[in-house]
Amino acid sequence: MVPEEVAQRPSRRAVAVPELVERARSGDARSVARLISLVEDASPLLREVMAALAPHSGNARIVGITGSPGVGKSTSTSALIKELRSTGKRVGVLAVDPSSPFSGGALLGDRVRMSDHALDPEVYIRSMASRGHLGGLSWTTPQALRVLDAAGCDVILVETVGVGQSEVEIAGLADTTLVLLAPGMGDGIQALKAGILEIGDLFVVNKADRDGANTTRREIRSVVSARESDWKAPIVLTVATTGEGVDEVVTEMERHREYLAGGELERRRLARVGREIEALALGSLRSRMADVTGDARLGSLAADVLAGRSDPFAAADTLVEHL
Amino acid sequence: MVPEEVAQRPSRRAVAVPELVERARSGDARSVARLISLVEDASPLLREVMAALAPHSGNARIVGITGSPGVGKSTSTSALIKELRSTGKRVGVLAVDPSSPFSGGALLGDRVRMSDHALDPEVYIRSMASRGHLGGLSWTTPQALRVLDAAGCDVILVETVGVGQSEVEIAGLADTTLVLLAPGMGDGIQALKAGILEIGDLFVVNKADRDGANTTRREIRSVVSARESDWKAPIVLTVATTGEGVDEVVTEMERHREYLAGGELERRRLARVGREIEALALGSLRSRMADVTGDARLGSLAADVLAGRSDPFAAADTLVEHL
Repeated sequence: MVPEEVAQRPSRRAVAVPELVERARSGDARSVARLISLVEDASPLLREVMAALAPHSGNARIVGITGSPGVGKSTSTSALIKELRSTGKRVGVLAVDPSSPFSGGALLGDRVRMSDHALDPEVYIRSMASRGHLGGLSWTTPQALRVLDAAGCDVILVETVGVGQSEVEIAGLADTTLVLLAPGMGDGIQALKAGILEIGDLFVVNKADRDGANTTRREIRSVVSARESDWKAPIVLTVATTGEGVDEVVTEMERHREYLAGGELERRRLARVGREIEALALGSLRSRMADVTGDARLGSLAADVLAGRSDPFAAADTLVEHL
Repeated sequence: MVPEEVAQRPSRRAVAVPELVERARSGDARSVARLISLVEDASPLLREVMAALAPHSGNARIVGITGSPGVGKSTSTSALIKELRSTGKRVGVLAVDPSSPFSGGALLGDRVRMSDHALDPEVYIRSMASRGHLGGLSWTTPQALRVLDAAGCDVILVETVGVGQSEVEIAGLADTTLVLLAPGMGDGIQALKAGILEIGDLFVVNKADRDGANTTRREIRSVVSARESDWKAPIVLTVATTGEGVDEVVTEMERHREYLAGGELERRRLARVGREIEALALGSLRSRMADVTGDARLGSLAADVLAGRSDPFAAADTLVEHL
């Protein structure tokens, strides 16, 4: 059942891609939202959009924020926005929630803002569902980051719900990965050691006014100090609700940026883009395969295998030849 | 550290594939084990093996057995083997455990047998780890099934630990999927409704001497009766430890086989082989891609994207063109 007002909503006026990109670059929030919607909807215009954005990307710093539910991710993100805004930065936020039943912008409204920053024209907040990619960040995330980047964001915060693989993937997407924890996680920290603690460039123990903050810091330190890396990941205590310690987080983010500038940033970004190109190439091959399998060829190959006239490897070779 | 006896173990005598296949078909257990090891090790001989097996496959009935830990899967499998043996069937068992740290035959011994059937030459039991495929059945499973099929097994039982997606995949591999439950799962059955109950062709409530067996049967029935299918999935109560009800399970398996013979078996197997061919084709493309990305091309494409001279989609197109 489609509500009447939705069914009758007039289709949006068609806007040419170059115009949309130009408007987004000049800071028009509606155009930014529209471009991200094109990404989310896997619009046929997507290739044109990405080609138009290409010359204008690479300026934003991408900071991943991950942590288990309950550590105060949204409050911390909001406090970080406030702190970054106080230094004049244009901030983008991409909230990626693998468990969200919403398919992104369409249902949540074109722009979902965190209430504190709802009226700030220098803050773009966007919620995206990570559909289409089992348990992790969707392939659309890097494209959405490109839109925010081209729109002139100085810093983009990518917030993920820390479940399963997504926190590992966030480390692949971000220049700097901020891992958020809270005191009193007890044995949980043991379990996390293998995964979440490995990926942090910067650790934040939020809710530091609670008992056990120093214990948590010590536990993190014991893991982090075992790393072989030039970068010693700092551990900052915060109380995001009051803003305490958040300035220090921004300072450490900045310090990590300076560290990365010594060549590591280039390496991380090259690796990241390489993986993205591979994933897109594989996706394109997959869809060519779907075209082939839509026709009778796969059925006839399968029938040959079933009848013992062929085997699956030989049939797969034939399929690949026909792509 | 490789134990000395392993390091010094003489390499197996090389046997030509046609000879190995011939021996396996004549019922030589060592040759069957050797062929499955070639599958597990992704041996370069695998294609030759599969081509040699092709004319001899399609005779075995494949029965998937799945259920949560603790419902008595291994005991039930063992009881089923006994019952099937009493009717003179040659039985193969493939135990696929996604959580197993063992990489299959090499560590567990060439042939892992359930103790009750250790000396029966008409029973092949093989444990496989499902490495290489996140959370589910490995791509090697269908190939191992082909070996057991060609070796003259009348029935092959594929036992999986029911975690995550594997039970859904087992339904794709098997002609008949047997879902095992036990009384007293309480709310668990609600959670299972969406997944495990959907895929069963045949339900077995094991440990039926415990309280609540009839409640469990009723709960299953309420889900199953809502299905739109010509086949009304039967629900059998068993006590696998004593063998009670196991004959009825075999009778119902037989009844399902007769039902499938009306065209559904052909449809299921065609779809299954089609998916397998697609997966192998995609794997082959993926490894071609890895060949390409090993050289400097991907690095140079990534550098172009980073510099804004290209975008990821255009770069992916270029990559695909070079496969």
